Amino acid sequence: MTTTHTIKFLPHNREIKVNDGENLIRAAMEAGVHINASCGGEGVCGKCRVLVEQGQVQGGVSEQISTEDREKGYRLACRSTITGDVVIRVPVESAVDASVLSQRYVPRRTARIRQMDLNDLKEQGLFLPPVEKIYIELPEPDNQDHLPDVTRLVSHLKLHHDEHRLTVSLPVIRKLPDVLRKDGFRVTATLARPVMDSGKTEIVNVQPGDTSDRIYGIAMDIGTTTVYGQLIDLKSGDVLSEHGDFNGQISYGEDVISRIVFAEKEGGLDRLHKVVAETINGIVNRIVRRARVDPDDIAAITLAGNTTMTQLLLKVNPRYIRRSPYVPASTLYPPIRAVDIGLDLRDHVTALVYPAVSSYVGGDIVAGVMGAGLYLDDRLTLFMDIGTNAEIVIGNRDWLACAACSAGPAFEGGGIKFGMRAAKGAIEDFSLDPATWEPMLMTIGNQRPKGICGSGLIIMTAVMFELGLINNLGKFNRDLPTGRIREDNGVWEYVLAWADETQIDRDIALTEIDIENLIRAKGAIFSGCITLLTEVGMGMADIDRIILAGGFGSYVDLEKAMTIGLLPEIDPEKVTFIGNSSLMGAKMSSLTNRIRKDVVEVTRSMTNFELSETMSYMDNYVAALFLPHTDMDQFPRLKERMAQRHGKAKG
Amino acid sequence: MTTTHTIKFLPHNREIKVNDGENLIRAAMEAGVHINASCGGEGVCGKCRVLVEQGQVQGGVSEQISTEDREKGYRLACRSTITGDVVIRVPVESAVDASVLSQRYVPRRTARIRQMDLNDLKEQGLFLPPVEKIYIELPEPDNQDHLPDVTRLVSHLKLHHDEHRLTVSLPVIRKLPDVLRKDGFRVTATLARPVMDSGKTEIVNVQPGDTSDRIYGIAMDIGTTTVYGQLIDLKSGDVLSEHGDFNGQISYGEDVISRIVFAEKEGGLDRLHKVVAETINGIVNRIVRRARVDPDDIAAITLAGNTTMTQLLLKVNPRYIRRSPYVPASTLYPPIRAVDIGLDLRDHVTALVYPAVSSYVGGDIVAGVMGAGLYLDDRLTLFMDIGTNAEIVIGNRDWLACAACSAGPAFEGGGIKFGMRAAKGAIEDFSLDPATWEPMLMTIGNQRPKGICGSGLIIMTAVMFELGLINNLGKFNRDLPTGRIREDNGVWEYVLAWADETQIDRDIALTEIDIENLIRAKGAIFSGCITLLTEVGMGMADIDRIILAGGFGSYVDLEKAMTIGLLPEIDPEKVTFIGNSSLMGAKMSSLTNRIRKDVVEVTRSMTNFELSETMSYMDNYVAALFLPHTDMDQFPRLKERMAQRHGKAKG
Repeated sequence: MTTTHTIKFLPHNREIKVNDGENLIRAAMEAGVHINASCGGEGVCGKCRVLVEQGQVQGGVSEQISTEDREKGYRLACRSTITGDVVIRVPVESAVDASVLSQRYVPRRTARIRQMDLNDLKEQGLFLPPVEKIYIELPEPDNQDHLPDVTRLVSHLKLHHDEHRLTVSLPVIRKLPDVLRKDGFRVTATLARPVMDSGKTEIVNVQPGDTSDRIYGIAMDIGTTTVYGQLIDLKSGDVLSEHGDFNGQISYGEDVISRIVFAEKEGGLDRLHKVVAETINGIVNRIVRRARVDPDDIAAITLAGNTTMTQLLLKVNPRYIRRSPYVPASTLYPPIRAVDIGLDLRDHVTALVYPAVSSYVGGDIVAGVMGAGLYLDDRLTLFMDIGTNAEIVIGNRDWLACAACSAGPAFEGGGIKFGMRAAKGAIEDFSLDPATWEPMLMTIGNQRPKGICGSGLIIMTAVMFELGLINNLGKFNRDLPTGRIREDNGVWEYVLAWADETQIDRDIALTEIDIENLIRAKGAIFSGCITLLTEVGMGMADIDRIILAGGFGSYVDLEKAMTIGLLPEIDPEKVTFIGNSSLMGAKMSSLTNRIRKDVVEVTRSMTNFELSETMSYMDNYVAALFLPHTDMDQFPRLKERMAQRHGKAKG
Repeated sequence: MTTTHTIKFLPHNREIKVNDGENLIRAAMEAGVHINASCGGEGVCGKCRVLVEQGQVQGGVSEQISTEDREKGYRLACRSTITGDVVIRVPVESAVDASVLSQRYVPRRTARIRQMDLNDLKEQGLFLPPVEKIYIELPEPDNQDHLPDVTRLVSHLKLHHDEHRLTVSLPVIRKLPDVLRKDGFRVTATLARPVMDSGKTEIVNVQPGDTSDRIYGIAMDIGTTTVYGQLIDLKSGDVLSEHGDFNGQISYGEDVISRIVFAEKEGGLDRLHKVVAETINGIVNRIVRRARVDPDDIAAITLAGNTTMTQLLLKVNPRYIRRSPYVPASTLYPPIRAVDIGLDLRDHVTALVYPAVSSYVGGDIVAGVMGAGLYLDDRLTLFMDIGTNAEIVIGNRDWLACAACSAGPAFEGGGIKFGMRAAKGAIEDFSLDPATWEPMLMTIGNQRPKGICGSGLIIMTAVMFELGLINNLGKFNRDLPTGRIREDNGVWEYVLAWADETQIDRDIALTEIDIENLIRAKGAIFSGCITLLTEVGMGMADIDRIILAGGFGSYVDLEKAMTIGLLPEIDPEKVTFIGNSSLMGAKMSSLTNRIRKDVVEVTRSMTNFELSETMSYMDNYVAALFLPHTDMDQFPRLKERMAQRHGKAKG
């Protein structure tokens, strides 16, 4: 068990419990206590001096603190580690109104992680992998019994295991005679269950002797940027190994549109198909080797990807995906032999490809919906996968509606002056001293800042808005007494870190254009949700829970996302994060045939809205181009906080 | 219309009508009139001198006839062609009892040829090819209609053509987007019907525009020796082109056993698979080119072959076929993509492989049974395919039993001292002068004899037996006053042609060992039939009709075959010949899905007897090792003829 320690911050008189080894400035951030800090935690700006009044911290000593001050107990917060209970005094400028210190504390919190519940599946009797092995001992043929090998196997599976409507593939017919005679007609058959009850079970593989305890499946998420695979033990449901790699197609374009453009060139489709197959094969080989399983025991692979990734893998020309009226070639795919799409798996392995709903709501989203069980739940759920594009699904067991929102790349740092992906040096956390307007920055890896990542952008905007540094249009209050707000080439900005505090030797600032881009992005998503809801006669208030998927969902500060109007205001307890939902759905499908049966019906019943062609969308979008929204009544908690603050500021 | 002429033979006073251009000696053979002849019809032995008493023949003049005799009207019968009514006097040795001339005349006749009745099929509403094309005009997608391409096609086929439960293959998904847009969403879909009603119809191909009048299938018979293919217009049922070729596997062994032996060698199976696929591809390319059809319009290929040929084509190791207890890998095969078995056809072409019953009653026989409609008929039918092996099927709509008889190669000239295949120079017809014991021979191509083919062997043996040259054990009557019966190296024989009358410069003779081999062969087949019948409590007399298949059935003299006990005595009118039944069955399956539905049930319900393991078979076999059989009561017509002759000989 992790030891915890109590930190008391003065003069705020606020206590917080943290794990042993926590960084002091992160603890302050967590406690909602502002400490000036510009260098992201690298300890070079020297601004985050605090006084350790009781107890001891580890580290925090620096050239920037004189021997005398050190002996008094001064330390750099960003270099201090908590190893016991301490009382910390944060120097506060005398100009600061004490009331600021008692501002209502909104803890930073990200979404609760929700694990796929395999046990639920087992308890409900739904742990029914689509492939299964059966070991059987057959009587040997003799002068009284000339049953052909295939008939012998099929009829005894029928007799002793109640297996009906069996079919046998040619590769199995080819193997069977020798396999049967290798171990005295003791044989293990791998059966692939039909998707529909009316279908047939196919014997896809046979092995000599009893190998029925070894059967594996592969789940694969084919992302535009990254591809993840898991090797799953279909007896236990355990993930035996997993691996992710960049999609080899990246060299041919970063987003789906540039991939489609490349695919339209001579030989382009073949190339992109081959490259992603290679990526998948690399991952497959790695997870198979790592788990030390016999490739012959792998019985199925389930693949989920967006519509373009799916078409490229299947070598289906995606050119019409990017042309109005944006129709995909197909949304449903038949079971396909893995070798037929260039996968380095045995002949008998069937590839199951997740169906899509439309050109921009693909199999990855459907996999998420299936994996998260949206379609089985009474609660009205908002499912969001925010990445390069944002896909949203709203609904419950009775209805499902979905749409893709052109959010643009703001959440991944695109279109932001100092935007960057969530990598070391990216500002990911931020607070603001409402008296001095000095920032507290934390970067990934506690380095001097390089830029701003998506989650940092949301936090900054939310904090600045709530404290009045920017207004509900995202414009800076130019009257504030701070040199950090300035005009540069006609664009107003707030300097987060001065050149000498950064890794890039330039001032890092957040500009009004950046904020405008963020507002457009969150507006596109929020208005997408509103549009789906109003089209079915409901509103945001009806939403019972939110499920976040995709990398973005793991680190976004929920309250801040609600403050800027990206998410509707809802009890954060009701927001869960399910990680790579596409991979999760693929894994779930590997474990229960029920999902494969349901998915066809689900995709058929999902109403897809092409937002650009939905009348109400543009109105909703314009109304969402504010912080958080034109209609503050949709954000009652924020409204109350703002009113309180306003009152205090006045009082 | 063919002109016919009347020939009157004297002193027999027998008249016969023949077609214009008939050879005179063949006409005599047909009329049952003996004319001595040893050179097979080449005109060199000069023995067949006849006198043209009225009318004229064309030709027949020879150095062997003096000018004087020529002017009198003497001609060589074997070189004379009938061009008008004539009266012919055959010189008869004075020693000949006139009664011989009035012996009851048994005309030579082969089985009536029975054509597959496509019209019947059409009248019964069974002309339902398993593949079909539908032309459809789809609405184009627009801002209000984003249906994916596949959904668009499927849903409109459902709406306008009542096509339900459609599936789409990956190659079609790949083609569809461009095909749809090539001709304004006017498209022709090729549908493959399921075998079972519960199955799904698959869209296997799509083409731009209306191509629905062009859809073709291929029927292929894969024989051990020869492979035949037909290109069939599935709209009309017409055969557009056909071609046959030697099975390329011949270089690796003449019969199935030697092929299996070769297949067991390293790389042998691959080689044999490849070679027969090449043979098939050669035929396919030829019939496609000859009929000038677009390969894209070929939708299916149906293949029929014996169990070994089938396994070799499908690359399924046949080693256990030749090992007791002789079990095949499978009797049923799933629909297979033609390209997967190395066939040079488009991706979308499905290969339908005829199921087998056992290792030695293969898909070729099943195809025959299906094509001939045995399983639909009330009449008890004996179906025989006599080739290297002889397969027999007995039954009707209620039951079917089958067996393979190890007849040995006697019917193809194997194991016969001067045996040869039915090629030019093979003695194919024979008669015997019961006074002088001189032969009348006719060869294929009217050449000097080279040897004896199967049908000739049967005729000789029947004639010799009926005239008393051999007894019911097949032994020569050594007391007869002719130099043609002699002992050579301890083996008794009858000289058919002296060395100088042959092409091989050796005496051509029929030996007792040859006759013994023939008796064994016919005994194996007859006792096979008896065994099947007695196992179900019936006898030969219950048989309503006989269907002969395979090359052998086309030229065998039915009465002679009954005389030696190869066929049961039955009204020759009730014997029909259906030619290459395997090819016929394959063709029928191309034209009606009904057969494909029925065949699974038929093969399941066919009782296969492994004769070598059936108790009663050996007794039946021993009883059949006589001419025609130990039980003469089974051959009442022959018994009566023999009794009459015996009476005359005595009187």
